[in-house]
Amino acid sequence: MEPISCELLSIGSELLVGETVDTNAAHLAGELTLLGLLVSGVRQLPDDRAVIAAALRDARSRSTLVIATGGLGPTHDDLTREATADALGEPLAEDARLVAALERRFRAHGPMPSANRKQATRIPSAIALDNPIGSAPGWWVDRDKSVLVLLPGVPAEMRRMWREQAEPRIRGRFSLPDLHVRSVKTFGIGESALAERLSALLDADDPRVGIYARDDGVHVRFTTRGDRTRVDEAVAAALALAGDDAYGTDGEELSTVALSALGRRGVKTLASWEAGTQGALLGVLAGVEPRDGMARFVGGLLDEGGTAAVPHADVVLQLSLSPAARTGRSQLEVSMSGMLSLPPRRLRIHGAGPQRLRRAAFAALDQVRREMR
Amino acid sequence: MEPISCELLSIGSELLVGETVDTNAAHLAGELTLLGLLVSGVRQLPDDRAVIAAALRDARSRSTLVIATGGLGPTHDDLTREATADALGEPLAEDARLVAALERRFRAHGPMPSANRKQATRIPSAIALDNPIGSAPGWWVDRDKSVLVLLPGVPAEMRRMWREQAEPRIRGRFSLPDLHVRSVKTFGIGESALAERLSALLDADDPRVGIYARDDGVHVRFTTRGDRTRVDEAVAAALALAGDDAYGTDGEELSTVALSALGRRGVKTLASWEAGTQGALLGVLAGVEPRDGMARFVGGLLDEGGTAAVPHADVVLQLSLSPAARTGRSQLEVSMSGMLSLPPRRLRIHGAGPQRLRRAAFAALDQVRREMR
Repeated sequence: MEPISCELLSIGSELLVGETVDTNAAHLAGELTLLGLLVSGVRQLPDDRAVIAAALRDARSRSTLVIATGGLGPTHDDLTREATADALGEPLAEDARLVAALERRFRAHGPMPSANRKQATRIPSAIALDNPIGSAPGWWVDRDKSVLVLLPGVPAEMRRMWREQAEPRIRGRFSLPDLHVRSVKTFGIGESALAERLSALLDADDPRVGIYARDDGVHVRFTTRGDRTRVDEAVAAALALAGDDAYGTDGEELSTVALSALGRRGVKTLASWEAGTQGALLGVLAGVEPRDGMARFVGGLLDEGGTAAVPHADVVLQLSLSPAARTGRSQLEVSMSGMLSLPPRRLRIHGAGPQRLRRAAFAALDQVRREMR
Repeated sequence: MEPISCELLSIGSELLVGETVDTNAAHLAGELTLLGLLVSGVRQLPDDRAVIAAALRDARSRSTLVIATGGLGPTHDDLTREATADALGEPLAEDARLVAALERRFRAHGPMPSANRKQATRIPSAIALDNPIGSAPGWWVDRDKSVLVLLPGVPAEMRRMWREQAEPRIRGRFSLPDLHVRSVKTFGIGESALAERLSALLDADDPRVGIYARDDGVHVRFTTRGDRTRVDEAVAAALALAGDDAYGTDGEELSTVALSALGRRGVKTLASWEAGTQGALLGVLAGVEPRDGMARFVGGLLDEGGTAAVPHADVVLQLSLSPAARTGRSQLEVSMSGMLSLPPRRLRIHGAGPQRLRRAAFAALDQVRREMR
């Protein structure tokens, strides 16, 4: 089977001045990986018609699938449609069906702003992709043995159009390879120490292994084509070698692992109290989707000397982080009280800035999952 | 003055499988913009020696300043040093001073893992940049009228090395242009409606204008070279045209604007209670750095039917979001009680997924800043 090469373009000057972090590319890269496609590169481009057109031509010359996000809005600096017309040498014209759909969309709010008319244009070889929650239709262009997909830059619109329209079309258009990706996640061990412990696995050619240091610990990712048991065996071996430092695999998170460990011991609700961390633990726990069997996070307090009472809960997780030393080390005290308790533990946190605060929150959750098994 | 062209490379296969969002590029792009440099492009590359070498050659042929992050770790897939040696045609050798520094660093933890030795290698034309909080030194390579800077991929290490070493060297090496960038931020008005209201400003060539829709509203960015009063005048004009829908400029956030509005009216502490939002408001408020004059966020509750009590505070901001309709619309009820109160208001929220939840949180904060002025 011929390999399908794939690259991503993220369009918008806001990406080049630090106003916006490009979460779209990361989301699409994750989705394409699940489809078994390896993304060979991502580029962020300014709102410059000639630059976008050149990048589109360049990407299409190398790759069978190119996905571009952004630049489909109604304003003067939304130029992806125009640049695509330039790159493919096709004229851009209004599509009566798209004009009618846009007018329907705006009817509830009054007349359609004239700026939006250009969102109803397309080139002859583009099939429009409906946008049920926004004004920018996407495009699907299958020409010259290469597929180009244009998606809106607004993340919710992009994700829905990907899921409902782009992904099913890609499944139908290409025969997708059999790629298997699995991860083992650890906390409390450094990147090189973990690499030494896993050295027998790293030398193998298949599965391929990547090691990544992140705020929530060091992750090891295994990738193979074809036989899924290869990655399953590698994951089992890595878990055995990492021992207590491994907290989960694949989509498991320190937060859900800790809340599940508490849930298994009968804890229904958890509240938090934190000092010196600017709400980093709140930030992590607030994002957890409640699930059966997990202790539920019911809220938390930031104590910078306030008098507010800690919310009622089966257990209260408490942490207090010292100010950062110039060496990048600070001290964290973690304890838990209530139905189950954890005596105070002192841990060392490395790093600086927001990362230091997030690492402290993850270290506290790691302590809970280690001691509540 | 000859313009300084500048591009960024972010190295690491984790960026191409959706495991990691590239916050480094956004941070550096923001910093370079503040220096008056326009980033012409960003690329994310896999851990592939030949691909990285080709991208480095390519970027150096176009740009006077190239900054690459990542791939400086100790593991087998950290290949940025090797690829740079390939791209520049120079040999890679151990530097005795760097070996000694690494050994000192590891002394406290026991012997240095052998994997780390390669972090002490450099090419002859590279000056090593110290990493006080990690094991990966950076490189500064000034050759062939082009500067290449290699920084670690760990965000805290990258940021500190940038601030303490790369940025001062860039200021010394280049004569930086006089670029001025300012933003006006709005909430509660759509992108095209705002563009119509600001149309007189959008037609001008100087300052250049960009409009961006984000979860916390629509932002308008003005950029000019030379005379700073041009952007100041444009900002004043945009604020007047946007009226009540504008909530701030530049670094101001909806959260800090709302907390400041409460602070001016004598509110010292704010707690939150939210339903249907999976803690989105907690997530936004937990990240706010406390400042004088602002009401302080002391904690919050998630109510999915729990019995926990709301923390004591001068005011409690309450919001409740209905489930999302298929059309992408849901209803938000916002109110505030305590020392100052806000009667219940119903607002409509567009979008889906995590964005819908964050928009609800921002809409609640917008309501507070509108009514508490």
